[in-house]
Amino acid sequence: MSSSSTSKNQNSPQLRKDIIFNRWVIFSPARSKRPSDFKSKSSSSSSSNPTGVRCPFCIGNEHQCAPEIFRVPDNNPNWKIRVIENLYPALSRELADPVDETGSASSVLDGFGFHDVVIETPDHDVVLSDLEREGIGEVFVAYCDRILELGKRNSIKYVQVFKNHGAAAGASMSHSHSQMIALPIIPPSVSARLGSMKEYFDQTGKCSICEIQQEDLLIDSSTYFFSLVPYAASFPFEIWIVPRYHSAHFHELDAEKIVQA
Amino acid sequence: MSSSSTSKNQNSPQLRKDIIFNRWVIFSPARSKRPSDFKSKSSSSSSSNPTGVRCPFCIGNEHQCAPEIFRVPDNNPNWKIRVIENLYPALSRELADPVDETGSASSVLDGFGFHDVVIETPDHDVVLSDLEREGIGEVFVAYCDRILELGKRNSIKYVQVFKNHGAAAGASMSHSHSQMIALPIIPPSVSARLGSMKEYFDQTGKCSICEIQQEDLLIDSSTYFFSLVPYAASFPFEIWIVPRYHSAHFHELDAEKIVQA
Repeated sequence: MSSSSTSKNQNSPQLRKDIIFNRWVIFSPARSKRPSDFKSKSSSSSSSNPTGVRCPFCIGNEHQCAPEIFRVPDNNPNWKIRVIENLYPALSRELADPVDETGSASSVLDGFGFHDVVIETPDHDVVLSDLEREGIGEVFVAYCDRILELGKRNSIKYVQVFKNHGAAAGASMSHSHSQMIALPIIPPSVSARLGSMKEYFDQTGKCSICEIQQEDLLIDSSTYFFSLVPYAASFPFEIWIVPRYHSAHFHELDAEKIVQA
Repeated sequence: MSSSSTSKNQNSPQLRKDIIFNRWVIFSPARSKRPSDFKSKSSSSSSSNPTGVRCPFCIGNEHQCAPEIFRVPDNNPNWKIRVIENLYPALSRELADPVDETGSASSVLDGFGFHDVVIETPDHDVVLSDLEREGIGEVFVAYCDRILELGKRNSIKYVQVFKNHGAAAGASMSHSHSQMIALPIIPPSVSARLGSMKEYFDQTGKCSICEIQQEDLLIDSSTYFFSLVPYAASFPFEIWIVPRYHSAHFHELDAEKIVQA
């Protein structure tokens, strides 16, 4: 795969700039080729398999997956968690690291970045919320470990952890998993939030997260976190999980805090 | 309905500010009460009526609607287009005009604004694209007339015309219609686009709309407009219809340009 010019390979992902909205869009032709457990359920030639025999995320089918990055426990055939490359990545780790793209006047960049999959359990029929507190904690520790590793690259500016639950949310595999995207740019929505928080601090001397009021709907709280429906929620069932202490980064989570959360 | 305090009426809409994202969210409890033609189609006690007899948007059922703002042709019982108030408005025209809310330090404002419905045809089974070129043009002229009227109010900062086509897009009535929301604030996404275009102009001396390149996918063009899939499209089937001449406002459209489009 060429790293010098995206025009040479029609399948290489690109970051395309919209100069009118001043935002970057990930354009990834290869994503259209990914299979779907969910779509195929309505057809007779279903490739979905409730027993997990043909599911590449099930234990024993590791050879059907894209390369493994790490597993928990390390080197153990009876793994609990695997972090693997995405077989249909939105961004390509094969491309050369960009030097400094943020000031680029170009309207297109090679789609460099990382798109990983976290398989949360070896068992096809278990979902994240079925796991014990410690099991969920280990998934979060895996996120943090991977973020720290990705963050060592100067070219990586932002890492997003996300989970699409169910076909309606865009998930294509029914086996419980989450995803991580490491980007060479900071998404505009993140810049906007950081800018807004900085402006609030400059004006008031206060942290806007600390200023969350009782008009927000408290759901639960623990030693290190509380959860709430924000007063100005912008979609149904929006929930924020907020640390009680100042914490600027997701990967500042530690094993103790996660399990007590 | 009290205009002095939103806390007095649980059903009055509010504009709620999210200080972390620095954005306003419209919070409208009354919207949850609106009926749905689409949802009821799956139940046996359907209130949907393909013949249009019980549809309030059909000709002859005008008395079932919220008050009319105007119709085309004027004062004609055989109307082609009606602009009416929304029976379940996201914002309330009953509340007092805000004086100047943009600098407000408050995290909640009365949900003042206008939310209108444009019934595009008296016929239940006709959709907008079924109309003749002139019929579609008249719908656009109705939008422009209404925007001009709303724009006379100092308190109205932005008018959005939109159309939800089908239940998946959020439409609750199957009879062909579109909606207009007039807001006392400028939405952050609009401010961001205007800011981006101004920055581009300041840096290059050029209009970023005029700079649309051939890498964008041209669909069609006419005397006054062209349509395209933007190079950095952010959703499937995204299409922009762009004027060939500098035009800052939707309501600068005139009847000749619309019909020749």
